[in-house]
Amino acid sequence: MKQLSVDHLLGIKYLNKNDIDLIFETANHFKEVINRPIKKVPSLRDITIANLFFENSTRTKLSFEIAEKRLSADILNFSAGQSSVKKGETLIDTVNNILSMKVDIVVMRHANVGAGVFLSKHVDAKIINAGDGTHEHPTQALLDSYSIKEKLGTVKGKKVLIVGDVLHSRVALSNIFALQLQGAQVKVCGPTTLIPKYITSLGVEVETNLKKALDWCDVANVLRVQHERMDIKYFPSTREYTQLFGINQQILDSLDKKIVIMHPGPINRGVEITSDVADSKQSIILNQVENGVAIRMAVIYLLAQQIKR
Amino acid sequence: MKQLSVDHLLGIKYLNKNDIDLIFETANHFKEVINRPIKKVPSLRDITIANLFFENSTRTKLSFEIAEKRLSADILNFSAGQSSVKKGETLIDTVNNILSMKVDIVVMRHANVGAGVFLSKHVDAKIINAGDGTHEHPTQALLDSYSIKEKLGTVKGKKVLIVGDVLHSRVALSNIFALQLQGAQVKVCGPTTLIPKYITSLGVEVETNLKKALDWCDVANVLRVQHERMDIKYFPSTREYTQLFGINQQILDSLDKKIVIMHPGPINRGVEITSDVADSKQSIILNQVENGVAIRMAVIYLLAQQIKR
Amino acid sequence: MKQLSVDHLLGIKYLNKNDIDLIFETANHFKEVINRPIKKVPSLRDITIANLFFENSTRTKLSFEIAEKRLSADILNFSAGQSSVKKGETLIDTVNNILSMKVDIVVMRHANVGAGVFLSKHVDAKIINAGDGTHEHPTQALLDSYSIKEKLGTVKGKKVLIVGDVLHSRVALSNIFALQLQGAQVKVCGPTTLIPKYITSLGVEVETNLKKALDWCDVANVLRVQHERMDIKYFPSTREYTQLFGINQQILDSLDKKIVIMHPGPINRGVEITSDVADSKQSIILNQVENGVAIRMAVIYLLAQQIKR
Repeated sequence: MKQLSVDHLLGIKYLNKNDIDLIFETANHFKEVINRPIKKVPSLRDITIANLFFENSTRTKLSFEIAEKRLSADILNFSAGQSSVKKGETLIDTVNNILSMKVDIVVMRHANVGAGVFLSKHVDAKIINAGDGTHEHPTQALLDSYSIKEKLGTVKGKKVLIVGDVLHSRVALSNIFALQLQGAQVKVCGPTTLIPKYITSLGVEVETNLKKALDWCDVANVLRVQHERMDIKYFPSTREYTQLFGINQQILDSLDKKIVIMHPGPINRGVEITSDVADSKQSIILNQVENGVAIRMAVIYLLAQQIKR
Repeated sequence: MKQLSVDHLLGIKYLNKNDIDLIFETANHFKEVINRPIKKVPSLRDITIANLFFENSTRTKLSFEIAEKRLSADILNFSAGQSSVKKGETLIDTVNNILSMKVDIVVMRHANVGAGVFLSKHVDAKIINAGDGTHEHPTQALLDSYSIKEKLGTVKGKKVLIVGDVLHSRVALSNIFALQLQGAQVKVCGPTTLIPKYITSLGVEVETNLKKALDWCDVANVLRVQHERMDIKYFPSTREYTQLFGINQQILDSLDKKIVIMHPGPINRGVEITSDVADSKQSIILNQVENGVAIRMAVIYLLAQQIKR
Repeated sequence: MKQLSVDHLLGIKYLNKNDIDLIFETANHFKEVINRPIKKVPSLRDITIANLFFENSTRTKLSFEIAEKRLSADILNFSAGQSSVKKGETLIDTVNNILSMKVDIVVMRHANVGAGVFLSKHVDAKIINAGDGTHEHPTQALLDSYSIKEKLGTVKGKKVLIVGDVLHSRVALSNIFALQLQGAQVKVCGPTTLIPKYITSLGVEVETNLKKALDWCDVANVLRVQHERMDIKYFPSTREYTQLFGINQQILDSLDKKIVIMHPGPINRGVEITSDVADSKQSIILNQVENGVAIRMAVIYLLAQQIKR
């Protein structure tokens, strides 16, 4: 049986093209499963998964939980609010304690960049990074590419634009890695204050004019305006942001083609994207959510195959 | 097989008498199930239910969860505290995202009147209203009527008194609809400031003298004094409320019959009801709780039958 | 089949030596189960367990939950934050409501001493005390003794030192009862302000010099410095505490033997214990966590056997 080249899913930057192909093939199978009347498989009845969310998350946490339930794994939920973390315990102690209760896979979201990598070196479990600070969010990037492939037949050669606050986005970085690995071209577009300087060193062009950027692309992945992550000094006002970088039907109609619209959610309707666009036929936003479950099932399933049983 | 006349359980006002009979018959079966050693049936192994509680609730949420577990459904819990709602996402976006993960039934409590009706028009899932603001709480009314029927043999022709803060109660309105549909007579009794003006237009009499009201009734459904819902200006002081409308053994002993005492919980002992009454043989308060699980199993089961599989 | 002499697990002080032996034998079996690839047994598929945590807890709650899942019980989680307790409901009402939904076993943590005993007299379910105030924490003491026995072959005749804040510790009291019942000798060591006066009446010696105390013992159970439980007036400063009562490699190396190091967690590294000691071969801290699941499975299983089915 084919196997991933990695022991954990810590970031897209550790994957190769074969890994992505394998994850997508496996996700195809699970996507069929979750559209059956009985949406479950008994595959992972002997696997215990701990979901450790040290930062709030709705949809990612829910998506992982559903994926785990569909695979019949045992699930332990642990969020920072209820936790010993408040009592000053270290991350390794917290996780080691959980692992002593015989946990096979840890899905972790953490505010600190590199938390997953750090953990993978110190504990004896498979680690899946569900977002580490503003760094990587690999399952999001995988589901995004999978959704592009589903819509357009392939990712290779496609022109993908990432619009918005790239600086504070873990979605952007993982997407850039995943798209380039599959042979897509990537540009970013947003306020210069919200585009990190290192971005061009990744082979990504910056285009500050939204109309020009949209003219270029096949797919626009619209990032959320993350008020909660932003320092006031960086930001144009919301009104300015919407005027300069908001995606509305008018600007889409001005293009000479239909581009695909994506958004990782949750949407600020009327800020980075208007309702008519979010709900239009060009939008694959809800497909992304659906595919997220299949992709997460695939990642968990493939890592579980590596566990000696 | 018999079917409900409605596609969702949004409120008692959308049900007809046959619906209530069907729910009660089905609940009889499930009540037998939950009193067996193995309290589960595998009926809904192919159904995923999301419990969306945008307002706090202990017993209703727990009762739904137990009902869902007894039916072997897959369960997703989602409460506002953990949610994207805090990030300003709209209700429809939140729910659509959850539904994209393949959810069949949504149980929702929401602070806004009509939230369930609104949602049922915009998303593709069965909606069960678990309380919308001060409006309806249909499963509570169903379990209340079911408990009366269990105790007295029938609801038809019985005289039911609702005592307390009718203005802020979703229990009162749903109960009035359910009782009238089954041919009971309903009166309300409470401070005039806490009785809504429209109540008489529903064919419900108002009696402000508690002794007279209790003399009239077969059943007294005692509402909780909801400090947390109340504007200080409406309310008599707690002490005055207890003196005028509190149910104690002395007033019950002054009647020439034994009436049935109900309360939707949680009880403020010594405020709207004394401990001796709450724990007396006239009280069916704990039966209501038990019946709540059977009623919720019945509602979920009947709606699930309508899903094409 | 052998049975426990008690109807509930309210505290070690209600157990006899045979009970402890029976729990340990049963835990041996379950420890083997949780180290199998499929870590579950279908034993308690007909049992519903409510976890009522009126105080925060990470590891104890998680450990109970895993134990319950491994036994295939139905689980209801209820924590004070979500609860009617905030609305002023009494403990008995809260629990009676939960029991009306057909719950067989209640696992409860509560801030008040004696909460479990009180509850066991008023409700019809098996009660397991998961910590009542600063009083007892019986499953912790059982897993501690079990871990000593696993490491040293027996508890009988061993010299066990409890180091730290005995005054605010529920772990200490339960451990003293459990160890004495099994024929161990127990001493305590800590700041005199943090040693309760009644301790000598339990047949426990107090030794305020850490070096002397360690010279005496076979096992040192190091209590957590519980900043959150402490009144500032009692306490030496953290720095003083660490200097006088902190366990570090240097003091252990000064002994003429290797003693066993235990800690109930969560650890304050560098305060009551240094990292090198916590992670050393002398430490059985993570074994304690692992054994906690087996012990809790045993306790739940044995109490469930008493339920008529």
